Amino acid sequence: MARRGRPTGSTGPVVGRALRLLDAFSAQRPELSLSEIARRAEVPVATAHRLMHELCGWGAVERGEDGLYRIGLRLWELGSLAPRGQGLRELALPFLEDLSQISRENVQLAIREGSEVIFIERIAGSGAVPVLTRVGGRFALTATGVGLVLLAHAPADVQDEVINGSIERYTSHTVTDPAELRRMLADVRTNGFSISDGQISLDTLSVGAPIYGGHEQVVAAVSLVVRNGGTSPHALVPLVRTSARAISRALSSPA
Amino acid sequence: MARRGRPTGSTGPVVGRALRLLDAFSAQRPELSLSEIARRAEVPVATAHRLMHELCGWGAVERGEDGLYRIGLRLWELGSLAPRGQGLRELALPFLEDLSQISRENVQLAIREGSEVIFIERIAGSGAVPVLTRVGGRFALTATGVGLVLLAHAPADVQDEVINGSIERYTSHTVTDPAELRRMLADVRTNGFSISDGQISLDTLSVGAPIYGGHEQVVAAVSLVVRNGGTSPHALVPLVRTSARAISRALSSPA
Repeated sequence: MARRGRPTGSTGPVVGRALRLLDAFSAQRPELSLSEIARRAEVPVATAHRLMHELCGWGAVERGEDGLYRIGLRLWELGSLAPRGQGLRELALPFLEDLSQISRENVQLAIREGSEVIFIERIAGSGAVPVLTRVGGRFALTATGVGLVLLAHAPADVQDEVINGSIERYTSHTVTDPAELRRMLADVRTNGFSISDGQISLDTLSVGAPIYGGHEQVVAAVSLVVRNGGTSPHALVPLVRTSARAISRALSSPA
Repeated sequence: MARRGRPTGSTGPVVGRALRLLDAFSAQRPELSLSEIARRAEVPVATAHRLMHELCGWGAVERGEDGLYRIGLRLWELGSLAPRGQGLRELALPFLEDLSQISRENVQLAIREGSEVIFIERIAGSGAVPVLTRVGGRFALTATGVGLVLLAHAPADVQDEVINGSIERYTSHTVTDPAELRRMLADVRTNGFSISDGQISLDTLSVGAPIYGGHEQVVAAVSLVVRNGGTSPHALVPLVRTSARAISRALSSPA
């Protein structure tokens, strides 16, 4: 699915405006005033007021005593029914917890949505290196351990779009050369794992492995993120691959 | 907040019908055909078709190759911004994991929404007794460990509504007598914990404790659910209370 889930203009006038109001919220802006919402959604304040009232009544948003709007519990509750989000997460969680307890490092579970990574789960290891990701957060497909796995197994048109587009450079180690990136992706497919070494921040290293659904299709990726210069990445590879395979097996076995 | 988050008829005609379509989905019915959605939302099929197309374009729902609709990743992503859902869960998760690792039992985190419990997180203990709850799932406020805590600290009108309403009996141990239930709730407030002994199923026992936000307000509850006849509940109480206090502290401390 190449759809980005961002405002696309493909929604009709009836529902479209209400959905555009919800698009104003993000991880960076989880609390918004009515005027901010109207401005971001490019909707007159009076219209925004009426639609937010409807969305409030249903529970999509909640209005605090401070007058600010936040995403409501009803939306969280409905969102928890998304098979590619909560469904995958529930199934994978026991394995991710095992990986977390055994490695004591950061464990991440992610899927690809269009040309981005979305983090579905994140377990911070006790005493592990701090990482930037959050559940529900997005990231570029290049550079992270999970991203490289997901990009390596993405359809050719997605790979072309990402590799020929502008590739963000996070550190001096971030691979931005198209030819080198293509070689890395070929290695990921051949070896069955990815290593992102200082590509996001110089002090972290990430090892990722693919999770398969049915039909040999990669549906998600799991990774360990550790402090660079600590455990050798090659010691982590078998751990991450074993965990990814266990989750793949659980996904393919009848419920 | 006494709003149930269910279709209330309070939404206007513009957005209301689209939201009613989403209400057709539930944990019991996560995959629906167009005609089922139309029937459940009491909307003509042609209208449902048009609105589902709009919701699909935005990512609120996804349509599989089997023609069935499911809740989409975009809704999960937006839902993850709800402070009372994902926000609380993210903050509490490290403490819940500690509780899970130390006890090896089932750990649950829940909040009250109107006259029901909503489970925000659930970590299944390795080898622990199976439990029925799921993240995003609802349950009655009576009978469960977390429910008794949340009901004990609910406003008087909510308590009256629940206690004077019909109280579901799950087992022969479920307390349904209003006077006895009120005594139990008073004990929960006095003691700082709840014990639900075989009230949901005869083979399980749950110990719950309150999580406080600012202003001495109970905002959530945490519990351990264990096999009945195993560990004495009084050995579990200090564990659960300590964990609840740690989460309360984290909630009150500035980010």
